[in-house]
Amino acid sequence: MDQKTSIELESSDINFVIIGHRAETSPDFPLNDLCGAAGRWDGLARCINTALLLSHEIRKDTNIHMILLGGKDPPKILTVSGRDIRYLNPDERSTAALMKKALNLPLSPSLRRPLCPTPGLYISRGGLDEFMDNMKGRAFLLDERGDDIYDTDVMEMLPRGGPPLFFFLSDDMDLSDQERASIMEGAHGTISVGPRVLHAHQAVAVLNNALDRSRKK
Amino acid sequence: MDQKTSIELESSDINFVIIGHRAETSPDFPLNDLCGAAGRWDGLARCINTALLLSHEIRKDTNIHMILLGGKDPPKILTVSGRDIRYLNPDERSTAALMKKALNLPLSPSLRRPLCPTPGLYISRGGLDEFMDNMKGRAFLLDERGDDIYDTDVMEMLPRGGPPLFFFLSDDMDLSDQERASIMEGAHGTISVGPRVLHAHQAVAVLNNALDRSRKK
Repeated sequence: MDQKTSIELESSDINFVIIGHRAETSPDFPLNDLCGAAGRWDGLARCINTALLLSHEIRKDTNIHMILLGGKDPPKILTVSGRDIRYLNPDERSTAALMKKALNLPLSPSLRRPLCPTPGLYISRGGLDEFMDNMKGRAFLLDERGDDIYDTDVMEMLPRGGPPLFFFLSDDMDLSDQERASIMEGAHGTISVGPRVLHAHQAVAVLNNALDRSRKK
Repeated sequence: MDQKTSIELESSDINFVIIGHRAETSPDFPLNDLCGAAGRWDGLARCINTALLLSHEIRKDTNIHMILLGGKDPPKILTVSGRDIRYLNPDERSTAALMKKALNLPLSPSLRRPLCPTPGLYISRGGLDEFMDNMKGRAFLLDERGDDIYDTDVMEMLPRGGPPLFFFLSDDMDLSDQERASIMEGAHGTISVGPRVLHAHQAVAVLNNALDRSRKK
């Protein structure tokens, strides 16, 4: 079974980081109620899809990390690597089912390295603070009060050999003051994707598009 | 039961029109297999969500029309009106379940007016040609070979009292030559949302964002 350290995992150029405040961390959540009993796994599945999938290919330079804080076994950090992931379909149900393969692995408190149940999927014990401690790159918090992405120099920072970029988003719940403080301690600033407040996966789509435009220049 | 003519329905400022080539038109498709047996209703559900939902509100000036060509009872035109729709949640499963309320209505060949099973949801018998015949507004085809939305004057056409805008997209299948010809006969041109080929709902997110930016000016 393929295994990598967190540092290696996080070396993808573009990284989305989503805080799943109520996302179920045990694998027994119902695929028929992603919006309810699963703690909004529907929204996380849409973020995975939108972060990684193009029409007929996968964004190999992009990872998505989910910090799962809900349910019976929090906290967990679940990473999907665009470079390596297989068996990823665009619909919410099959994406959530794939993620269960990771949630099904036992994580002992002493385990430092992520486990890899299937190529491109990695899970480890930890929350936002552990993630921030291990993150190596330039981080930005997506926030409606931030500077517009097209008015900032974020897109000039695309890591052509430089440090990777990390974009932090919340799910359908606002960040707590403590979460915001933890992110901002390691972040370069806050950025906004536009004049309206969007669902997380919509913001990911807009940001990916801005990055695509910047790469093309 | 509320009923409106097609013309009134289509008077919303912004309209997305998605061709669902294999989308099941009878209400008996399985909610557990939206990606397969339902003919990609997962993708249509994501388009509805992304076209109409903001973080905590609905885009009241936007409609989405789906031209459903698959399954047991094609063709049907299904419209969701942002102004009037209720009971719309963001997840694919509940969205598809809501759409079944419309697919469940019997549509006689002679029926010209759409039926309305629940507020903001309208269904009528017809395909792309019938839609084009009734469309009143400025239409654009989203196409990877089109002019970039930020290089065109589409965004200057936002209907501040002017004709509504219609943006045509295909689902996961390419348009046939005949479909493309039908749309282009009534369209002002083709536009692209950026340098990469996206899933339909991702393109809707990017286009909505461009419209938001234009409205703010």
